[in-house]
Amino acid sequence: MIDADTVIARLREADARSGGRRLAWTETWANERARLDAIAEDASDAVMVERDAFANAWYVLPGETDETVLVGSHSDSVPDGGWLDGMLGVHAGLGVLAAVAAGGRTPKRTLAVVDWADEEGTRFGRSLLGSAAATGALTGEELDRLRAHDGTPAREVTAAYGFDANALGTRSGRLRSVVAAVELHIEQGPTLERTGREVAAVAGCLGVRRSRITFEGEPGHAGTIAMPDRHDPVRTAAAFVTELFALAEQEDGFATTGEIEAEPAFVTAVPQRCRISLDMRHADARALDRLSTSARKLLEAGRCPASVTELHRQDPVHFDAGLIDAAVQASDGGPPLTSGPLHDSASLALAGIRTVMLFTSSKSGVSHCRDEDTPEAHLRRGLLALHRLIVTLLEPART
Amino acid sequence: MIDADTVIARLREADARSGGRRLAWTETWANERARLDAIAEDASDAVMVERDAFANAWYVLPGETDETVLVGSHSDSVPDGGWLDGMLGVHAGLGVLAAVAAGGRTPKRTLAVVDWADEEGTRFGRSLLGSAAATGALTGEELDRLRAHDGTPAREVTAAYGFDANALGTRSGRLRSVVAAVELHIEQGPTLERTGREVAAVAGCLGVRRSRITFEGEPGHAGTIAMPDRHDPVRTAAAFVTELFALAEQEDGFATTGEIEAEPAFVTAVPQRCRISLDMRHADARALDRLSTSARKLLEAGRCPASVTELHRQDPVHFDAGLIDAAVQASDGGPPLTSGPLHDSASLALAGIRTVMLFTSSKSGVSHCRDEDTPEAHLRRGLLALHRLIVTLLEPART
Repeated sequence: MIDADTVIARLREADARSGGRRLAWTETWANERARLDAIAEDASDAVMVERDAFANAWYVLPGETDETVLVGSHSDSVPDGGWLDGMLGVHAGLGVLAAVAAGGRTPKRTLAVVDWADEEGTRFGRSLLGSAAATGALTGEELDRLRAHDGTPAREVTAAYGFDANALGTRSGRLRSVVAAVELHIEQGPTLERTGREVAAVAGCLGVRRSRITFEGEPGHAGTIAMPDRHDPVRTAAAFVTELFALAEQEDGFATTGEIEAEPAFVTAVPQRCRISLDMRHADARALDRLSTSARKLLEAGRCPASVTELHRQDPVHFDAGLIDAAVQASDGGPPLTSGPLHDSASLALAGIRTVMLFTSSKSGVSHCRDEDTPEAHLRRGLLALHRLIVTLLEPART
Repeated sequence: MIDADTVIARLREADARSGGRRLAWTETWANERARLDAIAEDASDAVMVERDAFANAWYVLPGETDETVLVGSHSDSVPDGGWLDGMLGVHAGLGVLAAVAAGGRTPKRTLAVVDWADEEGTRFGRSLLGSAAATGALTGEELDRLRAHDGTPAREVTAAYGFDANALGTRSGRLRSVVAAVELHIEQGPTLERTGREVAAVAGCLGVRRSRITFEGEPGHAGTIAMPDRHDPVRTAAAFVTELFALAEQEDGFATTGEIEAEPAFVTAVPQRCRISLDMRHADARALDRLSTSARKLLEAGRCPASVTELHRQDPVHFDAGLIDAAVQASDGGPPLTSGPLHDSASLALAGIRTVMLFTSSKSGVSHCRDEDTPEAHLRRGLLALHRLIVTLLEPART
């Protein structure tokens, strides 16, 4: 059985050493990964510690066949992030690895634990960098457009940590043998806590349409242009947000404007323009399309003309139906969730790899901050569920 | 008759020398004022050039009595401002002064042209500084709170230009004898142009309620918190703006949100808070109160709590009924306007001085920019109207 005490203790130790400062492509991150290497090596003499061409760390326990069951997540964090986002899935994977190795019997399938490089996209604004590189989805062209805030090319920064941009565009070696992939992660939302659940299967990730919108108005003095004569970009933006958010609520989807600003910003003037960001999400592709169509129609009908720059487009990600069933059985038996945030597992599912996730509850639904937490009892339930699921998958007769 | 050609030529010369850079309390401004002194001195040997205790420039043509008819405006501009805002009224006043002096007959009443110091408030954020000081409305306490962007106290900056803060709190000498005050200004709005009018009387200034409002929400991930569960400060602010602006339109008033921002501003997160500015104006005090009450109720009913900081409160300013009639007759005979922007004339009216304004049209309604303009034919009509009105006022039997 997985040693949950040890896994949780290692998570707390890692947090004490590097918590909230474990940004990808930093020495803090690299040093913490060296600890992961040591933990994997301690688990069994049979374990192979590898880095693939894209700085992803692999810890492989060979089975009777090359068919590989993958378990993992990411060790990097956002600035001031919490102790569980990403790191839970890596230490949980190593805990499973140790438990399987301790069983003394070579499993039918090979077990690989992975620590994907740069899931958070903190440095270059590109999430899921290592996993997208491993599946072949990240191209050299896209990499060449990425730069750090100080202008340093991503190619240069990542090369210092062993990332080989020339290898981009093909699926990396180990991944070719993966027949099932599982990731344990915290929910980062309030659903499990609100419904009194501890751990649940995840059926996929929401589709995303993300853009920046600029409403172009006609500036004027706050006391001279009558309201009906105005082309007020703030008023048009406010009406748009109000109407679109109501539609998103009706559709059971999500709409978020995280950025909003007027330009120029004078207290006594109707601004020239108003810029907003818009992030729309939905589990259902058709509902997401309906929302996008509604947004476009509202923009066209608005008093001030709007220009739209698309930032991100991602259709809903559906995990493997058979694996979802297995994950439901291994966890609490309840209905699977849909993840709002993206995860490395989305990279794998989009690449056609059979994938599923498990979520443990998030205290108050918060993450990406030092307050991020999960009750220890729920973590233990999550570790047991993960172990149960992986053991099942390692013996193909039983799937 | 007033020499409109000369007045317009002087305005163009002044614009070529110092246009858009004539900020109060700068050498550029002071040098242009020295030119005004020279123009006034050239008009007649009888003219007295004075500075009062608050750096306001007075050009006085003595009449048979000390009862004084005041005409003027301000020579300072906003950065990149136009050639007419303020300066029109000063050069127009000097043109009237020259015409009256050239008549060769001492008028019944004394004629004073004034160039108020720092109408625009560009340096310290306090509009109408010189005129408010002259009426006694500006206190030493208020002055001591004013600082330039670099932190220099207003008291220190203004003292270098002859402003005596110790004299604040009482009406300055010349102003005590003023029995009527007239200001010619550009409209800075589109009403005259839209109605095909060239010059019109002004009945007063809109009342103003100006504040900053902070909506306090609960931050969260764009893909995890369901819409009905959110406390989204951007959504609350957008609904507030949408509803309040509709009410302002119904009330025939003005509502403007020139500043709006989210904090923190992440594309993928519901922000913690949203800050907006709100500027409400109306010619009618009761309608303005109704709007304020509506705003308060909307804020109280909003999903996210709001805190309000008042920036400016000004009841509607009503000019003198008899002077408005005289100004209507001297201009185009049409209905008087209400000014959206504040003017030095508001300082005088609020101090109980009989005051009126004349507006010439503004091309496209724009001001505070280099595109600010008025057709020359309209300027000529405005100068003639001003001259006609002043001549009438200088002979009290005829008012």
